[in-house]
Amino acid sequence: MPIDQRFYTHQGSQSLRTLLRLCNIGAEVDQDPEISSISAAGAAKAGDLCFVEGGPRQAGGTSPDASACFVKEGAVSGLPDGVTAIVVDQPRYAHKLAGEALYKLKDWDADGPAPSIDATANVSTSARIGSGAAIGAEARMGPGAVIGPGVQIGARTVIGPNAVIRCALIGNHVKIYANTVIGEAGFGVTLGPEGAEDVPQWGRVIVQDFVTIGANACIDRGAFDDTIIGERTKIDNLVQIAHNVIIGRNAAIASFTGISGTSTIGDGVAMGGRVGIADHINIGAGAKIAASAGIMKDVPPGETWGGIPAKPLRQYFREVTWVEKQVAATKKKPA
Amino acid sequence: MPIDQRFYTHQGSQSLRTLLRLCNIGAEVDQDPEISSISAAGAAKAGDLCFVEGGPRQAGGTSPDASACFVKEGAVSGLPDGVTAIVVDQPRYAHKLAGEALYKLKDWDADGPAPSIDATANVSTSARIGSGAAIGAEARMGPGAVIGPGVQIGARTVIGPNAVIRCALIGNHVKIYANTVIGEAGFGVTLGPEGAEDVPQWGRVIVQDFVTIGANACIDRGAFDDTIIGERTKIDNLVQIAHNVIIGRNAAIASFTGISGTSTIGDGVAMGGRVGIADHINIGAGAKIAASAGIMKDVPPGETWGGIPAKPLRQYFREVTWVEKQVAATKKKPA
Amino acid sequence: MPIDQRFYTHQGSQSLRTLLRLCNIGAEVDQDPEISSISAAGAAKAGDLCFVEGGPRQAGGTSPDASACFVKEGAVSGLPDGVTAIVVDQPRYAHKLAGEALYKLKDWDADGPAPSIDATANVSTSARIGSGAAIGAEARMGPGAVIGPGVQIGARTVIGPNAVIRCALIGNHVKIYANTVIGEAGFGVTLGPEGAEDVPQWGRVIVQDFVTIGANACIDRGAFDDTIIGERTKIDNLVQIAHNVIIGRNAAIASFTGISGTSTIGDGVAMGGRVGIADHINIGAGAKIAASAGIMKDVPPGETWGGIPAKPLRQYFREVTWVEKQVAATKKKPA
Repeated sequence: MPIDQRFYTHQGSQSLRTLLRLCNIGAEVDQDPEISSISAAGAAKAGDLCFVEGGPRQAGGTSPDASACFVKEGAVSGLPDGVTAIVVDQPRYAHKLAGEALYKLKDWDADGPAPSIDATANVSTSARIGSGAAIGAEARMGPGAVIGPGVQIGARTVIGPNAVIRCALIGNHVKIYANTVIGEAGFGVTLGPEGAEDVPQWGRVIVQDFVTIGANACIDRGAFDDTIIGERTKIDNLVQIAHNVIIGRNAAIASFTGISGTSTIGDGVAMGGRVGIADHINIGAGAKIAASAGIMKDVPPGETWGGIPAKPLRQYFREVTWVEKQVAATKKKPA
Repeated sequence: MPIDQRFYTHQGSQSLRTLLRLCNIGAEVDQDPEISSISAAGAAKAGDLCFVEGGPRQAGGTSPDASACFVKEGAVSGLPDGVTAIVVDQPRYAHKLAGEALYKLKDWDADGPAPSIDATANVSTSARIGSGAAIGAEARMGPGAVIGPGVQIGARTVIGPNAVIRCALIGNHVKIYANTVIGEAGFGVTLGPEGAEDVPQWGRVIVQDFVTIGANACIDRGAFDDTIIGERTKIDNLVQIAHNVIIGRNAAIASFTGISGTSTIGDGVAMGGRVGIADHINIGAGAKIAASAGIMKDVPPGETWGGIPAKPLRQYFREVTWVEKQVAATKKKPA
Repeated sequence: MPIDQRFYTHQGSQSLRTLLRLCNIGAEVDQDPEISSISAAGAAKAGDLCFVEGGPRQAGGTSPDASACFVKEGAVSGLPDGVTAIVVDQPRYAHKLAGEALYKLKDWDADGPAPSIDATANVSTSARIGSGAAIGAEARMGPGAVIGPGVQIGARTVIGPNAVIRCALIGNHVKIYANTVIGEAGFGVTLGPEGAEDVPQWGRVIVQDFVTIGANACIDRGAFDDTIIGERTKIDNLVQIAHNVIIGRNAAIASFTGISGTSTIGDGVAMGGRVGIADHINIGAGAKIAASAGIMKDVPPGETWGGIPAKPLRQYFREVTWVEKQVAATKKKPA
């Protein structure tokens, strides 16, 4: 997915060698393609610079359309023909530097065209609407709400006081309660030469129609692609949705639930409070997750799971009961 | 409890048939009583319209004073005499529509009388005080704090920067730290013809004297009645208190604790961090709940519980130790 | 550590007897030293008033330089010579009263010298910068951010919209995302004559260079000393760091993790989501803590722990698997 220039300013294309020099990356390259953008390796298009952190097998998953790819020395052999290899010790860190040379996240008060605010919208005097943003008919922006540059907010959508939104497209009839944060950078850490470095996040958040999001919740924007909250999904207070999570329609997610990066939640999934879901997990449509569960593997559609680590809820309760009985039986006699 | 018109605007009474027509609800009714308000079934008074989602037994719990009640066809027989039955497929959803026709939550910047701010109060220039609100003597409202219409704040109470409060009565000597949200809608989801729908919340939050509430916490208003935080109760950062929870005096509740709807916490209860409490639970006075516990049944007064699902802490630790010993014993020899 | 007068106003020294009278504390004392400040018992210097809540052994840990100490009657014998004993029933509560007579937390809009804002800094028009604060070169303060009096913010540091910071020294190249709260009072509760009382917090938060802190997180200031976040440590959204926690360099802490008071986290520690750490715990350098773990004892450097209560992760998984197998084996035959 191309990087959305409503949220990120393109700072101009560069030849690969120029870009490497701008980033102080000392690698030698065979070819000097024009680099216009960055992307994930599997989705790269002509003009894109990507990276592979793993070995030759991972490098083999790189799109053959990519113009160039940061790789470790041992992984070069796996790259498709025609993708220029750039051999570095820390591919993800090099890609971070290149990305920051090509694009810049627009600041909250970036210059740009005046926002487009529908005449029927109600924007509190203390709300801040960024340049190029659009506010739909009869939408309401609460006191102190901060809407970043380029954000699109649909008709009849209500944004609570002091909520903060950036890099996001928000549908119609959405409710976002007070102090919730949509579209800040996801949590990504890599190693650079000086220690821990943030991995920049170049994606967006899509919130579809009729979604409700409680107070003090966080929904991070995608790393390259989108974090998506499907139509009519209802999210409680103090929920964390990480980058690239995709949630279907009509899901219900209770307080203190955290969904880690790139997990997928099917239509109609119901989660009790303080559920934790690891990254890259699929929760099938209609599944029910009991409160406090820690999900470490995929949950098939329609099943009810619980426990830490989670398993089918019946099995979990059977195990809990079995241990209780064993211990009760040993209480009277010495073990 | 009648709906508090400091927070919700009454849009006028209607005859039942007119109200149903306004809401596009096609049900036929035998009687046409005047409907002035909505309520929960058990607490309904003359003029109130309520609903029962369950069967005839649940319908039997409806107050005989109720003027009318949305029920499913199979539940009509359970209704007390004199309560007009309105047969619909989705009673809670119909009740939502009727409630929204009768009342409207006042918006943050609703018109109304100027707030009453004591001459000795200190209101930051960037704080927003809604119409009809009252701020007591020597109270302090931090920068960016948002106080909704009709909210009452007592003497010497301190509201932190960017805290957001609506539909609430706050006592004297209360401290509410930065970015905490009091009185947003609780999490209630029902099914309508198009999918998931929010259940509107018509209640309030009562915070009694000398309560302290940390930063980034959330306390939801009641569904029909009040969420209540008792005198001198101390609540840490990032705590979630759901609708209709009632907490006694001198309780201490640590970070990441979530208390689900309609649970009751006795005087002097102490909870460690990240405790989860299911809905409709009673925690007896003086009970202690260990960190991380998941409470799924009532805790008697004075007991100490822990574990997920929680049980008396001694039993829990005995079980943990027993499993440890069994597994240690099998380590040397093949199972 | 002396109390930092950039954040707390010294209200003047007092003779001990005058101070007790000001606080309505009826205790008799043998000596009448000049009291200029308060501190923890072990770190007290000449002029300091401290307290001991425990018995004579705890009293023995009082610094011999302390000028006076609130103790229970039974603990007086343990105090070092030369420390004036003040016998009270509730030493921590008495110390609270004395502290509040000697110092006062500066309010958000306290009078004082204009803040020092570097000419190259970018401060949003709706951000509030307190008196005596300093904002470094090329730093950016988002809309609605609230920076308390005396706070120091380094060069190129970015503070997100509606973030709230007080009693803190923030380094260079730090990122703090939207709605995060730094430096509010930690959670401390003691008993006074009327019931639960907040323990005042007189310390600071130190955030070192290149730290990143996600959205809606909370970092409490120290009780007497500092809460410290070491260089390049990366903290996710919705994390809670309590008073006096010390975190090393290059740690990574995922969402919903809560670290209780006075715990120490070594360099390079990595924590999965919703980890809970009890108070006064040490996590050794390079340790890895699995998601959902509840840490109740020290974790040696380099180890990987998980489970509630946590233990080495391998042991935890062995136990989980053993229970699963036992129960699966009993399924076919009656127990």
